[in-house]
Amino acid sequence: MRVRKRKGAEEHLANHPQYVILEPEAAKGKWHQIFGNDNPIHIEVGSGKGAFITGMAQQNPDINYIGIDIQLSVLSYALDKVLASGVENVKLLRVDGSALTNYFEDGEVDMMYLNFSDPWPKSRHEKRRLTYKTFLDTYKQILPKNGEIHLKTDNRGFFEYSLTSFSQYGMILNKVWLDLHASDYEGNVMTEYERKFSEKGQAIYRVEAQFKD
Amino acid sequence: MRVRKRKGAEEHLANHPQYVILEPEAAKGKWHQIFGNDNPIHIEVGSGKGAFITGMAQQNPDINYIGIDIQLSVLSYALDKVLASGVENVKLLRVDGSALTNYFEDGEVDMMYLNFSDPWPKSRHEKRRLTYKTFLDTYKQILPKNGEIHLKTDNRGFFEYSLTSFSQYGMILNKVWLDLHASDYEGNVMTEYERKFSEKGQAIYRVEAQFKD
Repeated sequence: MRVRKRKGAEEHLANHPQYVILEPEAAKGKWHQIFGNDNPIHIEVGSGKGAFITGMAQQNPDINYIGIDIQLSVLSYALDKVLASGVENVKLLRVDGSALTNYFEDGEVDMMYLNFSDPWPKSRHEKRRLTYKTFLDTYKQILPKNGEIHLKTDNRGFFEYSLTSFSQYGMILNKVWLDLHASDYEGNVMTEYERKFSEKGQAIYRVEAQFKD
Repeated sequence: MRVRKRKGAEEHLANHPQYVILEPEAAKGKWHQIFGNDNPIHIEVGSGKGAFITGMAQQNPDINYIGIDIQLSVLSYALDKVLASGVENVKLLRVDGSALTNYFEDGEVDMMYLNFSDPWPKSRHEKRRLTYKTFLDTYKQILPKNGEIHLKTDNRGFFEYSLTSFSQYGMILNKVWLDLHASDYEGNVMTEYERKFSEKGQAIYRVEAQFKD
């Protein structure tokens, strides 16, 4: 998600250390301590303006959510949403999705979400796609055995790519939706993008994929 | 594919033993002999009126094709197409898709196609879907190690089901198309259904899935 640079974003984030993890490396292995409970930890890589993570946190108060985005301004808007919603089971982390093992111990994350990730459609940018095998290596490490990734996108090419990338990596596709909003899937929490694209009549794709040893 | 009963269909088939295999059990293990060469053998389970199998046979004269359908009338129309096209690398087989091991030796089939199979949308009919695990057992047996199934359909539910069924069976999805006709896929041979549905603007789904041990 690209947004215009927001004035004072950095200060805004720094002013809310109860929600924004300012020293990410120090958090590694200590996430349950940071949340102050033993509830499962779910992360969203590329959490954008935070509609999904906040909505999920409201829907599931017994799960801890961590929204991860590298962009300051975007993360500051997510902070607004967290503050407005009053949820206490969300933390925000400004780090890069490729370096997650620096911030999470092996198996420390119970589940992860990828929503409307940048599709990087050009072949020469394949390695940047968040479902490229080197990213899957990282996710596998921080997830438990048989850990799951739940992915949504409106981008046909990225979805085709992700299905095959998951499968070729040895992951199992447990469930696939080729038009999520036309299905009987319940409890869907929409992202900002999802609302926009689905209003245009575009199909939303979803998959639940699971690592296997 | 359901078609009206065709008068004289049985006689029509019986009159062309060079194309229609009248004693399927006797053919088991002897397909290369029947074709009179050592070319690869590709089968289409549910070959309908034969547009695909005939088109493929024209496109690939060095591959032997076997169109399989249980319905007499449908198969008789496929025979018309084969006769009209003059191809010599097609045989037609009137048997049920669930009993393929009766007609093919282990590994005797090099590749198989499933096109616009009956989706059997009701959950209680899952076992009838041609991508249900018991069918996959059969396909795996008659295909070589790492054998492939190439599937096309316009039916969203059946495609979603087939992707997960393949994956949960341990097959790898090598390539997925969520809108075949909008893609750069070359050499596509359309089935009768495919022509009809794509003319209505419906997306055609395709997957290439591969068995693994």
